[in-house]
Amino acid sequence: MRKVAIASSATTAFRKSSDLSIYELACEPSVELLKATTLRREDIDAVIVSSCSVEQYTSSIISEMLGISPRVSHRIDNLCNSGTNAIAAAYSYIASGLCDTALVIGAEKADSPGSRLIWDITRGSFAFPLHWAALFAKYHMRKYGTTEEQMAMVSVRNHKSAASNPMALFRKPLSLDDVMTSRRIAEPIKLLDCSASCDGASAVLLMSEEKAKQFSETPIWIEGIGQRTSAASFSRAAQDLSSIEAARIAARDAFKMAKSQPKEIDIAEVHDAFTILEIMAYEDLGFVEKGNGGNFRAEEAGIAINTRGGLLGCGHPIGATGVSQVSEIAVQLANKAGPRQIGDCRTGLVHNLSAAGTSATVMIMRGG
Amino acid sequence: MRKVAIASSATTAFRKSSDLSIYELACEPSVELLKATTLRREDIDAVIVSSCSVEQYTSSIISEMLGISPRVSHRIDNLCNSGTNAIAAAYSYIASGLCDTALVIGAEKADSPGSRLIWDITRGSFAFPLHWAALFAKYHMRKYGTTEEQMAMVSVRNHKSAASNPMALFRKPLSLDDVMTSRRIAEPIKLLDCSASCDGASAVLLMSEEKAKQFSETPIWIEGIGQRTSAASFSRAAQDLSSIEAARIAARDAFKMAKSQPKEIDIAEVHDAFTILEIMAYEDLGFVEKGNGGNFRAEEAGIAINTRGGLLGCGHPIGATGVSQVSEIAVQLANKAGPRQIGDCRTGLVHNLSAAGTSATVMIMRGG
Repeated sequence: MRKVAIASSATTAFRKSSDLSIYELACEPSVELLKATTLRREDIDAVIVSSCSVEQYTSSIISEMLGISPRVSHRIDNLCNSGTNAIAAAYSYIASGLCDTALVIGAEKADSPGSRLIWDITRGSFAFPLHWAALFAKYHMRKYGTTEEQMAMVSVRNHKSAASNPMALFRKPLSLDDVMTSRRIAEPIKLLDCSASCDGASAVLLMSEEKAKQFSETPIWIEGIGQRTSAASFSRAAQDLSSIEAARIAARDAFKMAKSQPKEIDIAEVHDAFTILEIMAYEDLGFVEKGNGGNFRAEEAGIAINTRGGLLGCGHPIGATGVSQVSEIAVQLANKAGPRQIGDCRTGLVHNLSAAGTSATVMIMRGG
Repeated sequence: MRKVAIASSATTAFRKSSDLSIYELACEPSVELLKATTLRREDIDAVIVSSCSVEQYTSSIISEMLGISPRVSHRIDNLCNSGTNAIAAAYSYIASGLCDTALVIGAEKADSPGSRLIWDITRGSFAFPLHWAALFAKYHMRKYGTTEEQMAMVSVRNHKSAASNPMALFRKPLSLDDVMTSRRIAEPIKLLDCSASCDGASAVLLMSEEKAKQFSETPIWIEGIGQRTSAASFSRAAQDLSSIEAARIAARDAFKMAKSQPKEIDIAEVHDAFTILEIMAYEDLGFVEKGNGGNFRAEEAGIAINTRGGLLGCGHPIGATGVSQVSEIAVQLANKAGPRQIGDCRTGLVHNLSAAGTSATVMIMRGG
């Protein structure tokens, strides 16, 4: 299998909403990325768009707007982990030899469908992601003694990180009290335990080893990819509410493929659509023992978590989220994160969920 | 690069419309395919759905309905060549080593979006595919002397083939007179020069060489894939109205990858959304010299064209079409096409276009 690198990436400001079309949104980071690379537009073999938009032929329209006539061009969607699916697909096109370069663009409008899971009749009236987050949280609290304060602290930490990320939707630090006293929506979940839909876009340029040597000063290698769809409906996927099975399997496979293990991870993007999900991610990824997620101290474990601010701080433009997560890890491993750059880091991880954790992608990346 | 085979496939009846949901439609051929294979559901690594439906999380929902918990699961869309894009993606997942097996399911409802290209403002009021077909036809007639009768004969031939395909939407043979006297819609295109949207689904199971040896008696190898997106808008893609540039480039690359040439092709599925497109395909694929498409006699050239009836005879369920084209070639090369089996055939080709030929996929497949 050919090695595949993230050659460069770009993410533009996430916004509550904007007048931009999905196409214009997608072009924002792409133009920035294309300006900064010496790779010519005619040498981009694939343009893969990640979006849950209902528009048709998006990847071809965006390609034309960018002045690219790619070989491979299509859209991929899979709700909240559309982005990492698109990157895994791009990885495959390059690893297989069909392409040498691929531009993955994640873009979403705040009013994108996918915020209500109407197709999952096993949820009864509880058709919003919020409802399963409440179930996960209550179960974790009851079984492991996890507290509302521990969950709230996830939000505090991620909003703090977001404050130093100019692309983040929420740049105002929050206190524990802010989160704890925010509106209670579905017991025990409060408003500030939740990420928010928004407009956003992110672009990542992938290359074969040969191309990366020519066109990237700091290639970041994708060394492990694990993916799993347990089911679509919550009731079938969540046999044990204390853990996301799809994420555990995806993590196991990603670590195996990368010949790595949790203790090697220096930096991780974890899917904190709700605070409880970040706590469960610590456990599902093997950073801490099952049940201890609430007490996990990332800094003591030597892992920087959600340095860009996570979904809680950055906002959650569904199809763009996974791409922006990969972008953040690539930027940090390349030592190009500016004011929010963490210290020495060599191995990074991305954890990206969809629809109540019914499916998951985990990726492991390494610097050169 | 690892070799990739079509291990088996299934296509269920295309219908004008039905009460089935997109999910139920997708399950029809998939269940048939799964019943006929000895591969276990737990050994299916990827489920990729090709559809232009606006539903969300389709591939995960369909996977759950089929009892599959795949690693990779997402939807791909790119209008009328969504299907071959999905198969090329599945090919990549296997060739790269990320997966050993992949189930590609194309499914579409008759009322799927994509029949009107509202995003292409370069078309002015001419937003239906019909309008560009009329432009192509007029140009070809003027420049090369192609006649309305030659176009009508494409429809006659494909409807004749469809008559022996139990899955086809139109099973009644047509006379030249039927086509010529059918309602004129956009000069010189008549109703029976056009394919029709419909409900339809098709499924193809791809495998690595190792798996194919275990689980397929008649593996058909995908040996060449060529793809190209010239642009999204008609006015930028069609610099010369006599030819589809994307198809020419895709064909060139597919032949190169397969180390093959047009004269080696025994059987081809060509994208006859309109009769003029089949005539142009003969030329773009190198079966006949430029301008002679109207006079091309496939039988004299030793090429069987659109044996299942093409889009004209079978109907055109957008996201399913490319998958059903690949299915037909695989079935014929495996000598399993029953009453419509052509004689000795070893090398087949699939030609699949989108949106006024602004993008194209060409695949070359060989029997064992």
